[in-house]
Amino acid sequence: MNSPLVPLGRPRAERADAARNREQLLATARAMVAELGVEGVTMDGLAERAGLGKGTVYRRFGTRAGIFHALLDEDEHAFQDQVMSGPPPLGPGAGPVDRLIAYGRARTAYLADHLAIVRASLDRKQPVPAGSPATLTRMHIRMLLSLARPGITDLDSLALQLTAALEGPVMLYLSAPQPTTAPDPALADRLGDSWQTLIERVCPSG
Amino acid sequence: MNSPLVPLGRPRAERADAARNREQLLATARAMVAELGVEGVTMDGLAERAGLGKGTVYRRFGTRAGIFHALLDEDEHAFQDQVMSGPPPLGPGAGPVDRLIAYGRARTAYLADHLAIVRASLDRKQPVPAGSPATLTRMHIRMLLSLARPGITDLDSLALQLTAALEGPVMLYLSAPQPTTAPDPALADRLGDSWQTLIERVCPSG
Repeated sequence: MNSPLVPLGRPRAERADAARNREQLLATARAMVAELGVEGVTMDGLAERAGLGKGTVYRRFGTRAGIFHALLDEDEHAFQDQVMSGPPPLGPGAGPVDRLIAYGRARTAYLADHLAIVRASLDRKQPVPAGSPATLTRMHIRMLLSLARPGITDLDSLALQLTAALEGPVMLYLSAPQPTTAPDPALADRLGDSWQTLIERVCPSG
Repeated sequence: MNSPLVPLGRPRAERADAARNREQLLATARAMVAELGVEGVTMDGLAERAGLGKGTVYRRFGTRAGIFHALLDEDEHAFQDQVMSGPPPLGPGAGPVDRLIAYGRARTAYLADHLAIVRASLDRKQPVPAGSPATLTRMHIRMLLSLARPGITDLDSLALQLTAALEGPVMLYLSAPQPTTAPDPALADRLGDSWQTLIERVCPSG
């Protein structure tokens, strides 16, 4: 949720074999997460299963948290692609209120789905990115809000508060003392419903 | 913002001299904060200025962060007293919507005023209490929301989102890399204004 959102570009150009190694490592890491859970992914285990040297894995990711950071980075890009150029109402082509609602529902589901990986991507020595900027969310909400309510005077602070309302509740689970892989399957739905209530009230139609 | 909110009670009964020492130390710490800023408060400096032994200060607070934790604890109690039994609309006696608006404005101002102390109360080795429960805020918003909109179906998740909207933006400044003593004097006002917009929309009159 922190740096994966910005910058948007890929690192610099990779040589073909480095890019191939990277893809292979990430695909292997995903398979390991699906099969063993986040806890089952280690640097050495990943190297062995990918058939690459440990040195390659350490150079690529630095730390175990770096593996999950790279996975998140890919998923954030895919999510952003959906928002920027996917089908409406998440992507362009729907009205701003519908897009706000769709964004909140999709983002809540994304964050809930990625709880374990986000947790694992946080270096234990670093503080949880508390009210981390969530820059894309904030910019997107601000843009849609300005379309939905032209002339609104408190655009920046309202966008900030709605961003916190959207990302904050899921961050709560990240900062809980015990890792919570699946906090409550209905959580994302319930938060999505009340997000819709919030947006419909803030941007009344007509 | 974290543990100071709960539990509400004082620790256990203190002996009279311990209570006197505590009061003297906290009053001295407040004077030092006012005069020198948060950075000017050290364990040894506090002991010297309070005319007490260093051992007393260390036993009382444990760490430097403990001093600020104790200051916050006092201020949280004072804030809670205002909410529970102070004059309306922050205290009882006003309608739920007016109380929600007053609470948000007062809480935002309180958090903005306490930024430096909250920062200093966080143990550097501990993560910032990211979406920390903010239990009092959440319970209070939930209670007032249930009065303002009886029969609301998404009470819990909406209360959670509004809590995040209220406390999240100020937490942003806490997690910023550089200590920000006074982020922006108008910040609390602007956030208070858009909080009012949010509440008036979520709880329309009539």
